Amino acid sequence: MILLDGRKTSSDIKDEITLEVAQLKKDGKKTPHLAAVIVGNDGASKTYVGAKVKACNRVGFESTLVELPEETTEETLLAQIEELNNNDDIDGFIVQLPLPKHIDEQKVIMAVNPDKDVDGFHPTNVGKMALNLPTFISATPFGILELLERYKVETSGKHVVVIGRSHIVGSPMSILLSQKRTVGNATVTITHSRTTNLKEITLQADIVVAALGIPEFLTADMVKENVTVIDVGITRVEDNTKKSGYRLLGDVAFDEVSKKSAFITPVPGGVGPMTIAMLLKNTLLACKRSN
Amino acid sequence: MILLDGRKTSSDIKDEITLEVAQLKKDGKKTPHLAAVIVGNDGASKTYVGAKVKACNRVGFESTLVELPEETTEETLLAQIEELNNNDDIDGFIVQLPLPKHIDEQKVIMAVNPDKDVDGFHPTNVGKMALNLPTFISATPFGILELLERYKVETSGKHVVVIGRSHIVGSPMSILLSQKRTVGNATVTITHSRTTNLKEITLQADIVVAALGIPEFLTADMVKENVTVIDVGITRVEDNTKKSGYRLLGDVAFDEVSKKSAFITPVPGGVGPMTIAMLLKNTLLACKRSN
Repeated sequence: MILLDGRKTSSDIKDEITLEVAQLKKDGKKTPHLAAVIVGNDGASKTYVGAKVKACNRVGFESTLVELPEETTEETLLAQIEELNNNDDIDGFIVQLPLPKHIDEQKVIMAVNPDKDVDGFHPTNVGKMALNLPTFISATPFGILELLERYKVETSGKHVVVIGRSHIVGSPMSILLSQKRTVGNATVTITHSRTTNLKEITLQADIVVAALGIPEFLTADMVKENVTVIDVGITRVEDNTKKSGYRLLGDVAFDEVSKKSAFITPVPGGVGPMTIAMLLKNTLLACKRSN
Repeated sequence: MILLDGRKTSSDIKDEITLEVAQLKKDGKKTPHLAAVIVGNDGASKTYVGAKVKACNRVGFESTLVELPEETTEETLLAQIEELNNNDDIDGFIVQLPLPKHIDEQKVIMAVNPDKDVDGFHPTNVGKMALNLPTFISATPFGILELLERYKVETSGKHVVVIGRSHIVGSPMSILLSQKRTVGNATVTITHSRTTNLKEITLQADIVVAALGIPEFLTADMVKENVTVIDVGITRVEDNTKKSGYRLLGDVAFDEVSKKSAFITPVPGGVGPMTIAMLLKNTLLACKRSN
């Protein structure tokens, strides 16, 4: 069993980006600049955004953090987005989700200039992804493709079973892995809550992508020998033996499934750490495209 | 075995649209107006566009046909599209494909205002489709959904196997049928030229969508009893016994597969006739949205 080490891979990617940014600066080119907008005081969101800013510093990007109060109106937020759209120094930006309930998230996503939408959430970018055109692939699916590529996990002609049809993971993964691309050309089955014979299907999988958000859902009896398992789930469960009072569980019963796996991502330390690295990659791409 | 009769269903839809347009006119509302742009002299393209204009007349739409010579430059075509984008009387328009080789098709598709893109080919509309947001679903997938709905073919929890991953049929069908929607909630497997065990997979299918473009590819030994079969293929093959010198074949060996089928589309007269009806539906929708 080989662990798909997201922490190490993410760190490798950041090192590569650092070198590239140093070269850009040496050549007198523009330094990539990522902005992040956060509305309100959600603790988890603040942590995520903080990590993104920190990652920018590490690789030599410029970063701008725009913090808006919880009571910000939709109108004010949209005006802020328009300002970032029009600011030539900003190569890409993200609006941290979720937003306060009085703001229409879809409207906000639609307002971001697709050319600066390094989260890849704008319908135009989702459409380009589905059409296999150059675009910003959103961080989680992009990170999974990158992990599979760097560990040379063969996907062509393999049967991938995706569990979960979310717009941010399950659906794009099923689209991407079926396409004609380096990490792709797989036969892909997408399953979800309405699937009636899930185990029968997962037992056929060469690769399982578990992205349904139910801790330890995928058990050893559901997979065949030498399966590759990508665990996208991450759920906090109470654990009094931990100082924090909780531990993180994936959608895969790791201990038992890993024994049958050729490759498997751990949780934490698998898919999670990849997302920020891919956001940086998209920002670098945005900078190169527009300069 | 029940035939999914696209000719009759298409005619029913046109009748419904006719009534609705009559009502719009009676209420003093705008009459839907579809424009079609054709470049060059391709015979098949002229026939398709002609059929679309004729269908507009039948349901009471206004229509405009823009015929440009083969040697039209990309620049001229883009200017024509911009004119249609800005013409408030035009609710929706299509640019008949394929275009002459000196014109970049993707650039042309990108130039169409997504709100007038009744073909549903613009990335923004493809993205909205993938995100299950209101949009123009392109004619062939939309027609298949409509056939399944009108014949009350159950899709929820069923296993759909799509053969072919084209951007205009296979890929959108696999996305749409897996979504949370009236005709949807299916477990979907997308297969293609790199699939290694196709028969093993099609034998599990409750519904097969064959869209690979190889005449009579799907044979009876590849499907289980009571399967539903959607045949999207349409290939001309020489036939000296016919006056025209050819006959049309689908991707399904109809005679043998139909014997095992619960529902099946014939070729011709199945999916094909649905496409124009769905183009009219999208145009009506565009008109209602913008007025």
